[in-house]
Amino acid sequence: MLRAFIAYGPDDLAMKLPALSLLALGLLCSAALAQKPAQPLAQKPPAKPARSSAEILAATSAADWRDVDPENLLLMTLPQGQVLIELAPRFAPRHAQNIRALARGGYYDGLAIVRVQDNFVTQWGDPDADTPDKARAFPAGAQARLPAEFSVALKGLPLNALPDVDGWAPRSGHVEGFPVAADPKTGQAWLAHCYGMVGAGRGDAVDSSTGAELYAVIGHAPRGLDLNITVVGRVLRGMEHLAALPRGGQNMGFYDKPEQRLAIRSVQLAATLPAEQRPALQVLRTDGEAWKALLDARRYRGGWFVHSPGHTEICSAPAPVRNKP
Amino acid sequence: MLRAFIAYGPDDLAMKLPALSLLALGLLCSAALAQKPAQPLAQKPPAKPARSSAEILAATSAADWRDVDPENLLLMTLPQGQVLIELAPRFAPRHAQNIRALARGGYYDGLAIVRVQDNFVTQWGDPDADTPDKARAFPAGAQARLPAEFSVALKGLPLNALPDVDGWAPRSGHVEGFPVAADPKTGQAWLAHCYGMVGAGRGDAVDSSTGAELYAVIGHAPRGLDLNITVVGRVLRGMEHLAALPRGGQNMGFYDKPEQRLAIRSVQLAATLPAEQRPALQVLRTDGEAWKALLDARRYRGGWFVHSPGHTEICSAPAPVRNKP
Repeated sequence: MLRAFIAYGPDDLAMKLPALSLLALGLLCSAALAQKPAQPLAQKPPAKPARSSAEILAATSAADWRDVDPENLLLMTLPQGQVLIELAPRFAPRHAQNIRALARGGYYDGLAIVRVQDNFVTQWGDPDADTPDKARAFPAGAQARLPAEFSVALKGLPLNALPDVDGWAPRSGHVEGFPVAADPKTGQAWLAHCYGMVGAGRGDAVDSSTGAELYAVIGHAPRGLDLNITVVGRVLRGMEHLAALPRGGQNMGFYDKPEQRLAIRSVQLAATLPAEQRPALQVLRTDGEAWKALLDARRYRGGWFVHSPGHTEICSAPAPVRNKP
Repeated sequence: MLRAFIAYGPDDLAMKLPALSLLALGLLCSAALAQKPAQPLAQKPPAKPARSSAEILAATSAADWRDVDPENLLLMTLPQGQVLIELAPRFAPRHAQNIRALARGGYYDGLAIVRVQDNFVTQWGDPDADTPDKARAFPAGAQARLPAEFSVALKGLPLNALPDVDGWAPRSGHVEGFPVAADPKTGQAWLAHCYGMVGAGRGDAVDSSTGAELYAVIGHAPRGLDLNITVVGRVLRGMEHLAALPRGGQNMGFYDKPEQRLAIRSVQLAATLPAEQRPALQVLRTDGEAWKALLDARRYRGGWFVHSPGHTEICSAPAPVRNKP
């Protein structure tokens, strides 16, 4: 009993697909066809039993993985451990550039986690940001004002679209490991607010974010935030250090007392570290066969599972991360 | 900057709907029509500016709220606070009955939280459950074997279906405040694995759960578990005490060392307490106008928001809970 649903997770066994799932699959197909004609239908179940996620990952080659660029890798050191964040300059180039400048200038060092709202976000920055005479000054090279970067052009974007229906957007999938939603009618694409995604806090003005204040999603994907705020990247390692923090109070989870805040020891850009000190991380390519197989391993479950959903979605399918072998 | 997206949450301001949302709404309409012909279309945006969630709740009357039956309310006391769980006997009658018997018999008192897997579940029970000679005996009235209760008949169920597309099931909505998914083709309905939902751990056998070991969802909704395990209820209060716990190790989040486990002081059934000691909780009725207005306040955002999703889903719309006035 204690090992209940231990089979759940990345170690699925042989694929098993009850009739119910075939039916559910059919419904998803028709829904996908109706909602996203430009997209492929929900995939048919694999002809042969699917490999488990662990087996699929074990069988990958170096070509299936992408190195994380040290220019896009942030190392946030907290008392309880390190959080590694990959910036997404393709989606938020000005914010990524500014966050690099802020990190290079030591801006975040000694600042704090100021907000932890259950099932929503953990947010960090300068507790005195709103007090002009006390707010920490930006280092040279960091801009105090940036344009909003809520979306980019869908055209030309290497989006690996999922055939699965996403109620929040007419199209969804992944770009270089990041969860992305898109709307062919408007020609826009944007990073989706999935668990572990990092965004830049803003005030009422859409262009009031600079990257000086950031948040990470620690609960069910708040997709209602999509297209309302600039998303800058994804936590690759250390989410548990952001998600397991004591929750703040009734004021949107902001800590009421200064002593509740958690000090940030430092936020460093990997590129500024000696090569041997840089974490060598890799993200599974989301434009390859291994990724396709992993998605199928989530749609068509085996082992402990008696029902396969025949479905997945961008926030249920995070791209795997590993240390470079 | 520090107050960034403080406007997000239950305190939305006047409704504001940009053209983009009208388009998105149109897409959702056609998708809803195609996917769920038996359901109403996605609602048109309100003719007049929507009230904020806070305003909607403030305007509710006693008739908009349902009392939580003390026979269905569990009080789990942990070192850091109390977790209040409402059982759902309509969906899992045998499990609810067994959990009541276990609580009445003091079975859970002194047991432990044994597993915390980031972005998945917190699980509790008898650490020695798998060791016959050490496993705690069930009290009189508790059954050691129950049928699986993965789904119920959709027919006759008072389901308040959402018009919004749900990729995981052809129909979704709420029943008495619980998130429910359903499939008219199979005639089944089931409790959905949303944040805060509570399920009964099982082994490989579908009928191996008894309610002696329970888990709560602490991350993005793992809807792939739906129809694979018996869901027994929902956490109404105290999720932060389950979600902010230190994560376990590589073995699916199970704590590797006994000293990592968190002792459960007690799990009591409210009905067994003197009337004046029972928490008097109410859940907003999900079959009324106030609930409809709250859902619209999520779909059509105002204030800080510049884009409205024109969409919501069962795991993004938890039914509000309050102390009975």
